Amino acid sequence: MNTHTRLPKKSLKSTPDTVTTGPIAGSRKVYAAPASHPAMRVPLREIALSDPGESPVRVYDSSGPYTDGDASIDLRQGLPLVRQAWIAARGFAEVAGRAVRPEDNGHVGADHLVAPCPARRTLQAGQPGQRVTQYEFARAGLITEEMVYVAHRENLGREAALAGARERQADGESFGAAIPDFVTPEFVRDEIARGRAIIPANINHPELEPVAIGRNFLVKVNANIGNSALSSGVAEEVEKLVWAIRWGADTVMDLSTGRNIHNIRSWILRNSPVPIGTVPIYQALEKVGGDPVKLDWDVFKDTLIEQAEQGVDYFTIHAGVRLAHVPLTASRVTGIVSRGGSIMARWCLAHHRESFLYERFADICDIMRRYDVSFSLGDGLRPGSIADANDAAQFAELETLGELTRIAWDKGCQVMIEGPGHVPMHKIKHNMDKQLATCGEAPFYTLGPLTTDIAPGYDHITSGIGAAMIGWFGTAMLCYVTPKEHLGLPDRDDVKTGVITYKIAAHAADLAKGHPAAKLRDDALSRARFDFRWEDQFNLSLDPDTARAFHDATLPKDVHKVAHFCSMCGPKFCSMQITQELRKEAKALEAEALAGMAEKAREFREGGGALYVPAAE
Amino acid sequence: MNTHTRLPKKSLKSTPDTVTTGPIAGSRKVYAAPASHPAMRVPLREIALSDPGESPVRVYDSSGPYTDGDASIDLRQGLPLVRQAWIAARGFAEVAGRAVRPEDNGHVGADHLVAPCPARRTLQAGQPGQRVTQYEFARAGLITEEMVYVAHRENLGREAALAGARERQADGESFGAAIPDFVTPEFVRDEIARGRAIIPANINHPELEPVAIGRNFLVKVNANIGNSALSSGVAEEVEKLVWAIRWGADTVMDLSTGRNIHNIRSWILRNSPVPIGTVPIYQALEKVGGDPVKLDWDVFKDTLIEQAEQGVDYFTIHAGVRLAHVPLTASRVTGIVSRGGSIMARWCLAHHRESFLYERFADICDIMRRYDVSFSLGDGLRPGSIADANDAAQFAELETLGELTRIAWDKGCQVMIEGPGHVPMHKIKHNMDKQLATCGEAPFYTLGPLTTDIAPGYDHITSGIGAAMIGWFGTAMLCYVTPKEHLGLPDRDDVKTGVITYKIAAHAADLAKGHPAAKLRDDALSRARFDFRWEDQFNLSLDPDTARAFHDATLPKDVHKVAHFCSMCGPKFCSMQITQELRKEAKALEAEALAGMAEKAREFREGGGALYVPAAE
Repeated sequence: MNTHTRLPKKSLKSTPDTVTTGPIAGSRKVYAAPASHPAMRVPLREIALSDPGESPVRVYDSSGPYTDGDASIDLRQGLPLVRQAWIAARGFAEVAGRAVRPEDNGHVGADHLVAPCPARRTLQAGQPGQRVTQYEFARAGLITEEMVYVAHRENLGREAALAGARERQADGESFGAAIPDFVTPEFVRDEIARGRAIIPANINHPELEPVAIGRNFLVKVNANIGNSALSSGVAEEVEKLVWAIRWGADTVMDLSTGRNIHNIRSWILRNSPVPIGTVPIYQALEKVGGDPVKLDWDVFKDTLIEQAEQGVDYFTIHAGVRLAHVPLTASRVTGIVSRGGSIMARWCLAHHRESFLYERFADICDIMRRYDVSFSLGDGLRPGSIADANDAAQFAELETLGELTRIAWDKGCQVMIEGPGHVPMHKIKHNMDKQLATCGEAPFYTLGPLTTDIAPGYDHITSGIGAAMIGWFGTAMLCYVTPKEHLGLPDRDDVKTGVITYKIAAHAADLAKGHPAAKLRDDALSRARFDFRWEDQFNLSLDPDTARAFHDATLPKDVHKVAHFCSMCGPKFCSMQITQELRKEAKALEAEALAGMAEKAREFREGGGALYVPAAE
Repeated sequence: MNTHTRLPKKSLKSTPDTVTTGPIAGSRKVYAAPASHPAMRVPLREIALSDPGESPVRVYDSSGPYTDGDASIDLRQGLPLVRQAWIAARGFAEVAGRAVRPEDNGHVGADHLVAPCPARRTLQAGQPGQRVTQYEFARAGLITEEMVYVAHRENLGREAALAGARERQADGESFGAAIPDFVTPEFVRDEIARGRAIIPANINHPELEPVAIGRNFLVKVNANIGNSALSSGVAEEVEKLVWAIRWGADTVMDLSTGRNIHNIRSWILRNSPVPIGTVPIYQALEKVGGDPVKLDWDVFKDTLIEQAEQGVDYFTIHAGVRLAHVPLTASRVTGIVSRGGSIMARWCLAHHRESFLYERFADICDIMRRYDVSFSLGDGLRPGSIADANDAAQFAELETLGELTRIAWDKGCQVMIEGPGHVPMHKIKHNMDKQLATCGEAPFYTLGPLTTDIAPGYDHITSGIGAAMIGWFGTAMLCYVTPKEHLGLPDRDDVKTGVITYKIAAHAADLAKGHPAAKLRDDALSRARFDFRWEDQFNLSLDPDTARAFHDATLPKDVHKVAHFCSMCGPKFCSMQITQELRKEAKALEAEALAGMAEKAREFREGGGALYVPAAE
């Protein structure tokens, strides 16, 4: 997903030389283990509530050890090796690996060279005939530890939370998705084997806390980060990742270009608990001096191997931009807006031949399979304006992506499909339906879509609307858009706003799909609201800091945090307070009404119980 | 619509003693006249573009004379009397009017009394048998000046803009709405006569620039404002109105309570070009010392007349909260969250009798008809949480609102219906469908709905998602929600964010419904984006100031405003720039492809033109 997001240098000046750590306000990190794997440590965030009658609420937690108050973070060591034993048991060959070359770091001079992360890992690669990918294990009927992990992670302990419920908590319209009441490892395996879900998990990324992406799981959110060409420290580069996952990003795409990208990527991967995605064509282009025409298979292949060995979990590959598709964009209002798409279109036209990504697709699969790098098949021809939505170019590419999906599956690879872009509301569902039909239900991963073009400065909102809808319709992961989209480089506040907006969209989608446990958090927060448990309301929100700050802005005193009123109506007259008084009276009235019904029933029985009584003449 | 919105005092300290005036950046106010009414001055905002090949874009403009560079604003004089001659020609009786009483201003002492606005207007009232309301004129087949005005206003000069288009510009799914290619006065009359649209326009509000609210018109946005109990000046009270309409609010509800509200309301009305709505029960409650139990018909009736004489254009009336509905809320997670709803529920239970608003509804109609105050039938039992959405209490009230709609129409009144609230996405459409069926297609006016409860601090976004969707499905007006909802009092920035978010939702809805002219602005902005006309892109956006500031944050120099790149990819590599180069090549390729097709066609013809050729044996 190649939207344009690099953090500007100026935002870095305010960041310290360490990354943000510590629990999110009002919660603590807990670890749970499935009964079958008592040593497994599946992270959750637990929000304790002030009412003794309320159970703590456990929520999905993508933030990694950074929010664990007991963890000690050392960027040079990298994160704990969650998957090391699992991977080791699979018997992959240790490989020497490709030697780092000057062009990998953009020919940076020695005086500006950023050292690579000193944390060293054993470099591994799958061999022909050996099962490597989650897809291959799933197809063989084998449940991996990653599948066990994500099953437990997705459940959020809802066996316990729902145990007391008399009825299924959720309703919803799932549009053909089939979210089970409880996620089992076998369900995960089956979804992966059917191509409906992926667990992006490079065998060279042992620090990963596995994540399921598929429409029968919680809707996920991706945040894009990128390097600052002039930054000197690595802590601030890792901080972008840490900051995005703190607020809920499930995966992060590193869209860096320029100098030191290879070495900075090593810091990011060794310190990332979430899947990292990249767009390898960006770095390949750097290696040929920035001229798309000079790209070729060799430099691209070299870049794939370079990044796969580092542990990148998924690659955006724009193999669907075929020569014949390019003329279809000629009459568009906004042409080709994807960087990867325009690179490949330029290459195809300049050479007047078919895309080498398309022609070499089987070779790309062989490389990616060897490390279990998942495909994110790029939508290089996505619409960049309302006018271009759902046009011939977009859907011609989607057809090709469907064809490529089947090839990748045949090769044993995991696949997801990237989607638009700018789409008005009435054309969104068609995108989802067509993607499911064309791409064999492979997970859809969309950028927004933006539902209007007229609000630069607010495109997190124009796109959050579309993201919520397409998430409801079946999109598995939503790529965030920040307020700076189309205008500039996002700062920390923009990244946080983008992530929170997309967590809202993803959760609204989960609710609407009828996810069995999604509503538990809404209900807990609404009960806190109704009971004037202000601290609980803040802590249950997606962003406790902002909720508390907004309350403080009007009612700053501690005593107001337990007040049975708020600043909107004030203490004199509060609808919630009145309702609480009403409840008692209403219950009495209800009892009376029931008594009245009992009286009617008595009359009915005494009247002989006839369903119809003769009309008076 | 009684969500809680009062601006806090602290925000007022930073506002000057005058209101915000002057054009919105990059545009100017223009006035257009329908051919039939050359003296009429229908306001539009015209955005000139830097490309000589691009026509200026005219957009709907609710901001009144405040954004007219040529207007002189004097709050003591009030605004120009747009409707004075129209109303005068209808021959209403001049009335003496109700005398102001101490309780109207909350018994404020002389030392704190705010003087009323000195601008005096002739007070008028319709008499029995005389046509007063837009509904009555419409039913009689008569087209009022207000209908002519809104017809011209809704068209946005699109005859000219669409004249060169080869095809209808918009597609869309309107769900039974019937938006015409061009709005005529007769179309407006017919929509009003059918009860499908209203023009809230009190005959004592001659300053009003009329607005159509109905699902076959542009989707409208309401902003709530309220007084600050301790503020001393009136300019800052009027400023809240001016600020909200500057960013696009089509109507404003004044939810003030406490001291001086009568006199401050006079300043607001005399200086408002948009319809003003109120919730009279709030002031009535003040008059009885804040105890709902002490309310009665007399004090309510007195308040209706007081506010109608001042010129309020629509009243929220919670007559649908009947005694029998109250027990239905007893098992809710969040009970009754509407202030008006909880007042009436309290009254009903305390007296154990039917609501006096329901029992006196015909009398209320008679009063409101006399001034053409439109009904906004309040949803006092709207859900306050996802858990309570679409429940028995909510829909029981909606059935009653349908019953009351018919009574109000029979009495000659204009009616719209208020709607929820908190509703997950999959339950939104049912609200719209049920409202249309139950209330005879009377315009729906919804608060959000909020699509999840878990994001206090971001409820403009949780609700913007729902607002866009329900607007698409047919809601005529969307009541904004600010980021401070549930937490505190919105400041200027919050009000602006709320209005812009809702303008996005409304416009996304217009696009999806297939409004014939909505897409013109998107297309103009997207062409500007593709051509790197940065200033045009800023000026065409809903908030030019923010768009420009965000661009400046990364690329502050003037030269960057004409640069053929942006901060996302930088000058070295830009997808849009490449695409522009590609276009030339692609056109050549297209020509070649066409030539190739011509060659195939020649072969086909020469082969005999058979559609099927025999398979080779």
